Amino acid sequence: MKLLVVGSIALDNIQTPFGNEKRSLGGSAIFTSMVSNNFCQTGLVGIVGEDFPKEYIELLSNNNIDLKDLSIVPGKTFHWSGKYDNFNTAETIVTDLNVFANFNPILNWENKQSEYLFLGNIDPILQLKVLDQMENVKITACDTMNYWIMRSRENLLKVIKKVDFLFINEEELRMLTKEQNIFQAADEALKMGSKHIIVKRGEYGSFIYTADFIFFMPVFPVKKVIDPTGAGDSFAGGFMGFLASEGKYDELSIKKAMIYGTITASFCVESFSIKRIKELTLSDILNRKQEIEKKIFL
Amino acid sequence: MKLLVVGSIALDNIQTPFGNEKRSLGGSAIFTSMVSNNFCQTGLVGIVGEDFPKEYIELLSNNNIDLKDLSIVPGKTFHWSGKYDNFNTAETIVTDLNVFANFNPILNWENKQSEYLFLGNIDPILQLKVLDQMENVKITACDTMNYWIMRSRENLLKVIKKVDFLFINEEELRMLTKEQNIFQAADEALKMGSKHIIVKRGEYGSFIYTADFIFFMPVFPVKKVIDPTGAGDSFAGGFMGFLASEGKYDELSIKKAMIYGTITASFCVESFSIKRIKELTLSDILNRKQEIEKKIFL
Repeated sequence: MKLLVVGSIALDNIQTPFGNEKRSLGGSAIFTSMVSNNFCQTGLVGIVGEDFPKEYIELLSNNNIDLKDLSIVPGKTFHWSGKYDNFNTAETIVTDLNVFANFNPILNWENKQSEYLFLGNIDPILQLKVLDQMENVKITACDTMNYWIMRSRENLLKVIKKVDFLFINEEELRMLTKEQNIFQAADEALKMGSKHIIVKRGEYGSFIYTADFIFFMPVFPVKKVIDPTGAGDSFAGGFMGFLASEGKYDELSIKKAMIYGTITASFCVESFSIKRIKELTLSDILNRKQEIEKKIFL
Repeated sequence: MKLLVVGSIALDNIQTPFGNEKRSLGGSAIFTSMVSNNFCQTGLVGIVGEDFPKEYIELLSNNNIDLKDLSIVPGKTFHWSGKYDNFNTAETIVTDLNVFANFNPILNWENKQSEYLFLGNIDPILQLKVLDQMENVKITACDTMNYWIMRSRENLLKVIKKVDFLFINEEELRMLTKEQNIFQAADEALKMGSKHIIVKRGEYGSFIYTADFIFFMPVFPVKKVIDPTGAGDSFAGGFMGFLASEGKYDELSIKKAMIYGTITASFCVESFSIKRIKELTLSDILNRKQEIEKKIFL
């Protein structure tokens, strides 16, 4: 089945204790689609400026990512510059929206038929607009951030009501629900209408919270985290990609998807940008699956 | 097999967002032994003053905790007063060592024969002294804290070299090893000589790190944490109590012990002091075991 991925595409400047990267490929839609293509047919919906390097287009294309809904327009590509002192939170130095400020996703008829949809962290108005265009969608998921929780709460709540999976980090979940206890917060988020809440906890892993079950995942133990940028989106790529490849989403498939998301996120943080995930093979993923299962199951 | 538990016994004043408690029963040896007696024969080694309430002695005694090495001496019992604003770190308001300042554990000949030993967080010199008195011990474990890491590093390193299990929280592990990455820090701690490092991560659970395997545990999801005091010691009580009841410590037993520790800690935090754990039954523990296994295994 096909997964459609909507989100930002960026040229990032990143500083971590292990070095600096300039104009490296980033953005939520990039991390998610560069991972999900290992599992399923993937379409990308996004916008870039004329400065967007041709080699990046080729890279996406060579990874069999469908670029019919990638708009290339006059102007500059979205730019984010950030710094990590520890690896749990980034300090944003610059956000230049550039052409992303005018992002208005209009889907090609073929993409409208996608059965799986991942809405990366963008304006909830745009997330709603994409949702409205889907004609055959079975499973939908969204991510968000503190900015939209504070500035566009009403629209975000409409999105949450419509999607099957809400990806959110702990701090955002507490902000969204005004609950401190993380499990009570997840309860509140369920009441908002999303069937499954996937709570991202950085170096502490993640858990999925539903009315029927909870399932916890630690991180895969990475001894040298080089750059955490995109970890959450890579998680979503592994999770949604696996579900799309399964074609079902019963409890067992969802739990397995949590494992695949954890694994793909672990590869992401081992290098700057998409350096590691662009080399990813199914056998890399399956090897790490075997390794992590020993660390979490009896 | 018998577990000997050495540590502090305190009368605590505790403030949390859910209320205040005065002169409630606390201290590492109390939480550990009040839990471990559900699994195995337990002996307590500690010191209290003449002000120590008789009802507490009876409570320990009624829980079949062997008190041969409980010293009751003139003076006041160790007193700790602390406050929690969030549930991950306590702010210490008062520490009155009182009679605990003169704690000098001399073991009864019967306790010297115990096969299992848990050294709660006390001066490493005393931990060494107890270790030296053990005549038939099979499995030993210790806990510690930032104070000893900074002030008594050499003696603490001697203890770590001798014990089978080191219980330590994340911050302390980073301080002990001077490594930021938690898995590298655990590697360093292994090099110090303890065979197994159990890293406690508060609301994020724990993991055990050995040369042969790693095993992660989330917390049992408690929706209303009333008082986290003693959670780590209750974890140790469930862990060591289960191992002592098994009489072996292969990989599978250790992983199961991690589950039992997680469960007993989850009961501890649901009430002030030992209110919940003093009511604990094996069937409570087994019910929660079934529940948590659904949340962590496929």
